[in-house]
Amino acid sequence: MSARPVKMILSDLGEFGLIGFIDRKIGKCSRALKGIGDDTAVIPLSSRKYLLFTTDMLREGIHFTRKMPAQGIGHKALACNISDIAAMGGIPQYAVVSLGAPGTCPQRFISGIYDGIRQTAKKFGVEIVGGDTIKCKEIIINVALTGEVGKKHVIYRSGARCGDHIFVTGPLGNSLSSGWHLNFVPRVKEAQYLVKKFRPTAMIDISDGLAADLGHILSESRVGAVIEEDLIPRRKGASLKQALHDGEDFELLFTLPAAKAKAFESCGGKNFKSYRIGQVVDDEFGLQLRTEESGLKTVKGKGYTHF
Amino acid sequence: MSARPVKMILSDLGEFGLIGFIDRKIGKCSRALKGIGDDTAVIPLSSRKYLLFTTDMLREGIHFTRKMPAQGIGHKALACNISDIAAMGGIPQYAVVSLGAPGTCPQRFISGIYDGIRQTAKKFGVEIVGGDTIKCKEIIINVALTGEVGKKHVIYRSGARCGDHIFVTGPLGNSLSSGWHLNFVPRVKEAQYLVKKFRPTAMIDISDGLAADLGHILSESRVGAVIEEDLIPRRKGASLKQALHDGEDFELLFTLPAAKAKAFESCGGKNFKSYRIGQVVDDEFGLQLRTEESGLKTVKGKGYTHF
Repeated sequence: MSARPVKMILSDLGEFGLIGFIDRKIGKCSRALKGIGDDTAVIPLSSRKYLLFTTDMLREGIHFTRKMPAQGIGHKALACNISDIAAMGGIPQYAVVSLGAPGTCPQRFISGIYDGIRQTAKKFGVEIVGGDTIKCKEIIINVALTGEVGKKHVIYRSGARCGDHIFVTGPLGNSLSSGWHLNFVPRVKEAQYLVKKFRPTAMIDISDGLAADLGHILSESRVGAVIEEDLIPRRKGASLKQALHDGEDFELLFTLPAAKAKAFESCGGKNFKSYRIGQVVDDEFGLQLRTEESGLKTVKGKGYTHF
Repeated sequence: MSARPVKMILSDLGEFGLIGFIDRKIGKCSRALKGIGDDTAVIPLSSRKYLLFTTDMLREGIHFTRKMPAQGIGHKALACNISDIAAMGGIPQYAVVSLGAPGTCPQRFISGIYDGIRQTAKKFGVEIVGGDTIKCKEIIINVALTGEVGKKHVIYRSGARCGDHIFVTGPLGNSLSSGWHLNFVPRVKEAQYLVKKFRPTAMIDISDGLAADLGHILSESRVGAVIEEDLIPRRKGASLKQALHDGEDFELLFTLPAAKAKAFESCGGKNFKSYRIGQVVDDEFGLQLRTEESGLKTVKGKGYTHF
């Protein structure tokens, strides 16, 4: 007699377990150059360009609450997708927006959300070209966004090499309590400057937390990294732990070969702030944090997980 | 003293009120040829082609329940978007899938949903290139899908003219109770044949019900229509009312000028079944149903509304 198998639920699997499971189930793409596993999909478009395609679902109670300003929520729903396009080196273009909301939801709140979406769309040259509306128990906003990138400008997570320097475009941590997650500026301009002038070897936007997202670059590039406690820029009031693990900073995290890093630091800093936080090392080291107190220690990505 | 204004909620506004409100808020597109208001958005792509872009959000308790086969639910989530691309005369290409689900949801059920998505994607040449997963109180599936259409093949809702004949590609009504809504075949092949051989003047897929979706063609084309009770094909067991107002048939509804309609009926019928159900008339008539019993009477679109 064999024991009855235990029924596996999503909480047992965990968020990254679920994503891995879906990824394996969906399988490889044949026409798309990148499917699941980078900031956006990368799809052949013309002899010089790729189409980028990404989506994000936001939910009341996790990504926002009704006590937050509705326009900020609308901004966030679109801007977190724009940030993904930026992280590929691309320009955002067209969005479709799905809204789920309870029948008891005040029109004014929904109006505020769409005001935020419209204003951010206008600011970043995005056209809202469609959508869907359904009744839900809680407010759900799903945005899918396309973009374009020159073939010679696309940046993946997988190109970091030993010796590269690691940079972020702004201070990290405390995004939620500071309100940054509702009014962050997706780094399209900075990414455009970077891909055109310095061509980073790898780039990602920090949505899951520095440690987790650097972890994505490291695993995709098959390298390790050492980051320095005293170089990691922190948002006002943020602890080191928060700077490492809080999500929703939406800053760019990128790597540059040593020679380019030097040139970037000496001239690139004029265009926007950026912070060198460490260096890419051999795969075997994993992700190491150097602190004055205890030297090197291994860091694990443990940003917010849904399940 | 003025009375305090009553706080408007979404249920007061109604689904079409909400859509109209969002539409006005978002405003007109400048680059996209069609934004909100057709089956998909239509976006310039190359000298010969348009990019199509659409999205649909499905929710447990409205569009499906956990008692239904999970693969059918996955099929439906993708296929209702494919049906929108078909209705523009296009070929579906790339999809991103967002999933919201409770932590207590069995992995097996989610696995079945993605099996359904994958199989339908494969059948229709769609690549799943990205997605998102979040924890929700109920299962929510949002699919956004791109497609392509030749500029000379794109069909809008707005081209129907007086005297055109009206056709549907299959029997209507009872989609939910018959299970059709979980295993319908999106009419890509039929639409391709139509746009290449007969070029319909207007086309839409029936998702809100015949009366409501014909209503969309009529209002966009600024015409009226007379449909004939005894010509409307009904699914087994469906009443006239169900054939007129049930949603989720996902058949194509299209109009052809009289001469082409004759040619289509005499030769086109060999490739797939289709049913002539009436004729386009002057705007002032609205949508009229001719029954043997009571002659002409006005029909109102009253398909399923969310709010």
